[in-house]
Amino acid sequence: MAPLTDLYHLTMAYGHWRAGRHRAPAAAELFFRRGPFGGAFALGAGLAEALRCLRAFRFSAADVAYLRSVLPSTTEDAFFNYLATLDASEVTISAVPEGSVIFAKVPFLQVKGPLLVVQLLETTLLCLVSYASLVATNAARFRLLAGPDVKLMEMGLRRAQGPDGALSASKYSYVGGFDYTSNILAGKLYGVPVCGTIAHSFIMSFTSLEEVQPRELPPLAGGEPVDLPSLAESWLGRVCELLQTPPEKANRGELAAFVSYAIAFPRDFQGLLDTYCVKRSGLPNFCAVALALHQLGYQAVGLRLDSGDLARQSKEIRQVLRACAAHFQVPWFETIPIAVSNDISEQSLEEFRREGSEINVIGVGMNLVTCPLQPSLGCVYKLVEVNGSPCLKLTEEEEKMTIPGTKTIYRLYDAAGHPFMDLMALEEEPLPSAGQEVVVHVLGRLNEASKVVPAAVEPLHRTYFRDGQVCEPLPSLPEVRSHAQASLSLLSPAHRRLREPEPYPVAVTERLHCLLTELWQASQ
Amino acid sequence: MAPLTDLYHLTMAYGHWRAGRHRAPAAAELFFRRGPFGGAFALGAGLAEALRCLRAFRFSAADVAYLRSVLPSTTEDAFFNYLATLDASEVTISAVPEGSVIFAKVPFLQVKGPLLVVQLLETTLLCLVSYASLVATNAARFRLLAGPDVKLMEMGLRRAQGPDGALSASKYSYVGGFDYTSNILAGKLYGVPVCGTIAHSFIMSFTSLEEVQPRELPPLAGGEPVDLPSLAESWLGRVCELLQTPPEKANRGELAAFVSYAIAFPRDFQGLLDTYCVKRSGLPNFCAVALALHQLGYQAVGLRLDSGDLARQSKEIRQVLRACAAHFQVPWFETIPIAVSNDISEQSLEEFRREGSEINVIGVGMNLVTCPLQPSLGCVYKLVEVNGSPCLKLTEEEEKMTIPGTKTIYRLYDAAGHPFMDLMALEEEPLPSAGQEVVVHVLGRLNEASKVVPAAVEPLHRTYFRDGQVCEPLPSLPEVRSHAQASLSLLSPAHRRLREPEPYPVAVTERLHCLLTELWQASQ
Repeated sequence: MAPLTDLYHLTMAYGHWRAGRHRAPAAAELFFRRGPFGGAFALGAGLAEALRCLRAFRFSAADVAYLRSVLPSTTEDAFFNYLATLDASEVTISAVPEGSVIFAKVPFLQVKGPLLVVQLLETTLLCLVSYASLVATNAARFRLLAGPDVKLMEMGLRRAQGPDGALSASKYSYVGGFDYTSNILAGKLYGVPVCGTIAHSFIMSFTSLEEVQPRELPPLAGGEPVDLPSLAESWLGRVCELLQTPPEKANRGELAAFVSYAIAFPRDFQGLLDTYCVKRSGLPNFCAVALALHQLGYQAVGLRLDSGDLARQSKEIRQVLRACAAHFQVPWFETIPIAVSNDISEQSLEEFRREGSEINVIGVGMNLVTCPLQPSLGCVYKLVEVNGSPCLKLTEEEEKMTIPGTKTIYRLYDAAGHPFMDLMALEEEPLPSAGQEVVVHVLGRLNEASKVVPAAVEPLHRTYFRDGQVCEPLPSLPEVRSHAQASLSLLSPAHRRLREPEPYPVAVTERLHCLLTELWQASQ
Repeated sequence: MAPLTDLYHLTMAYGHWRAGRHRAPAAAELFFRRGPFGGAFALGAGLAEALRCLRAFRFSAADVAYLRSVLPSTTEDAFFNYLATLDASEVTISAVPEGSVIFAKVPFLQVKGPLLVVQLLETTLLCLVSYASLVATNAARFRLLAGPDVKLMEMGLRRAQGPDGALSASKYSYVGGFDYTSNILAGKLYGVPVCGTIAHSFIMSFTSLEEVQPRELPPLAGGEPVDLPSLAESWLGRVCELLQTPPEKANRGELAAFVSYAIAFPRDFQGLLDTYCVKRSGLPNFCAVALALHQLGYQAVGLRLDSGDLARQSKEIRQVLRACAAHFQVPWFETIPIAVSNDISEQSLEEFRREGSEINVIGVGMNLVTCPLQPSLGCVYKLVEVNGSPCLKLTEEEEKMTIPGTKTIYRLYDAAGHPFMDLMALEEEPLPSAGQEVVVHVLGRLNEASKVVPAAVEPLHRTYFRDGQVCEPLPSLPEVRSHAQASLSLLSPAHRRLREPEPYPVAVTERLHCLLTELWQASQ
């Protein structure tokens, strides 16, 4: 790998190496401290990419030469020779399966290996899982707000942090529950379904029907080609009469663009209605072309709005589509999918729901990929054990305290099948049993012991990487996406709620609590 | 290139091709609509990367095969054959030099070429310049707030949209005025100066002085190596006496970590003071090790704080450093640079300034790279001319109106050397002359004509790409960075102000105004 890390990890690495501690067995954990976007949950994502990066973890000769040029001149040569031999073959990674619901303070990735390598991986792993998890979570929230039937399309390529930020956005939005991306490269590289539409610039590039070329389209069933501009123009008259709008207000450049698109894609015709006035131009022009196509046996596939009050307009448009369906006896016309875009946010989706709408497809760009409500998940990576001794970071901010020791994490389920608590235990402790009482200390009120009886217990982590190899089959992207939806569907409504959810309890076992208390006291 | 674009650009491309309009000469402009972060200015960045991408613009056989699989099945074969032959050899790009101050509504990149290619480049160009410009601007704002003397370090690798988002962040933060990055890969690939520090995890990996290995350090001037842990421990006693803190409260794991780091980097020793209690542990331990090093002839290079009230602590720490300098007669001790980090934002910098501080180095991560105040510059790319006819997009939102026609852009300067207006003229108009009256119409109040007399006139754009090649020498990254600072320094304070700046006027010439009016009337 290229050295995807911060310089201070290299200076620390040298510190450890110089002290002969670089091979000390160590363990670290990756987690976030607060649920993102004000919710209780996140989706864990980025694991497969992190594993790919681990497999390739290596300092090339060029990397080493560069490091030589930036580390202090007193750094010993032998250290650089050592760096050149490093790989991740002694690292073990366990993690929650990609796409799982995860909670604040619960490690979702655990790393064991030689101290030096474990520390060098900090930034690499944080960089690869943080944004992936954040944007998957953001997408999941959009999905929860939109409900299962609306199609969601990611269209943030132009708003992301460059090409690769955009690729991550497309991939992990899909994991979080989006249906499509507009980003062709994400389709090509990851198989994310792609979906297109028509843009203002296409429409603006036409000024009159004379520009339409070619002009003819044969009926779907075959037969004599028909001059589509004339046919559309005649339909425009009938539509304007029905809608009682003046036909001269329907922009002819727009009509030309629609006709031209229809001739190119007769089975996939769609319109973008707001380049000029929606009511007097976009909508009549769209209906005219769609009805002209219908006369030749083709069905339009959709229309899109990109400005104004989207919910209200969708209802007005649906009425017009219904009126056309009835008046011209074209039943399918009333079900033409209405797509919207334009700065769609969680708030927009709440408004659509509150006001009612006839929206079938929603395109989200900026507010999906940049996660403006919280642009970073704020993941941290903390050493929890070195040389068999648990590490504790005590700080003046209690929230920043770490839970020491290498752990096994369990998810406890209630009788209804909802997870109700994540429990951290020391690795050597036995698995808590379903139906048996467990004594726990909940983070935030550690000094109280309480008892819970889980109906089911699930060990949360699997070992994914060992001996330099990925050792657990990795699911496909659609499988990760399904797992995410299944994982979300298990959540109780109180924990799934997007705002002011019930806090999800995270606890430690009695033994882990004892260790914590001991270390705490020893450090006072 | 891989097809870094949205699917709808390909469907539109087919529409144009099918209509035989794909080679129609066209022009498009890239700009943003509002100054980011509530300021009046932005820095234009990303040009060199955009040009690199243009030079490589090409659909590979695999790209074409993929597109075949996702475009409607009615798409003609000949179109895909045509795609396989496409490149950017007929495209001309002009732009403001990278790093220049740019303003809302003023095109900072202009594209001319065959309609199909011009439209295909939309997302590519937006993706490459938007985030680059946004983060450079964000960095420039931090620089303006911090003043010229404080060192600024970018440390957002773990908070960015994956590895490439982070690389862009490092590169363009440097352009915007940062001094260093922590990201080694950005150092290696782009030559951005890298800078390291020490991390909590290094400190937490030590529990006692016995772990320090090796223990000895020879004096800088040569001679018998000394046992540094013992020497530091003895200095700790003297420091604690001076500071009147109990020596047993100084964490020995922390002391061991500092000693170990000092032995590894005797000429580059620095401390991170807040793993445990700053006053009773971090600061005494740091001073002890720094004074022990001093006794051997070495100078510590800095210390860092990563939590709590940073301004207040910096002042308290400076007092302690001064006290040590005086008491132990080590004059350089009082000037040890104090670095701070921990969620630093514009607001933090304003607080530091308001409260006064002794901070010399500031590390910024999340609030720099994710630009939470405005995570997207919201750039747009609009067709302004096709086949010699200017395009006008009239919408119900006046802000979304475009200015038609291919243009030359001038920056007008006042007698004090400050730019006071950007002026768009039709390409065929003569250059406005310095010292001569120009009639202009300012956007926002287009119907009023007003007169201005620029003391100097600068054509803003240069042609950077023509005939498939970059045709203007591209400056190095440090040159771009210097240009950005020079460009910012020309701004009048009223326009440079970060909040509620005076709006920067953008105007059109009388002739362009006439064209606009004509087109407007024709479309009514």
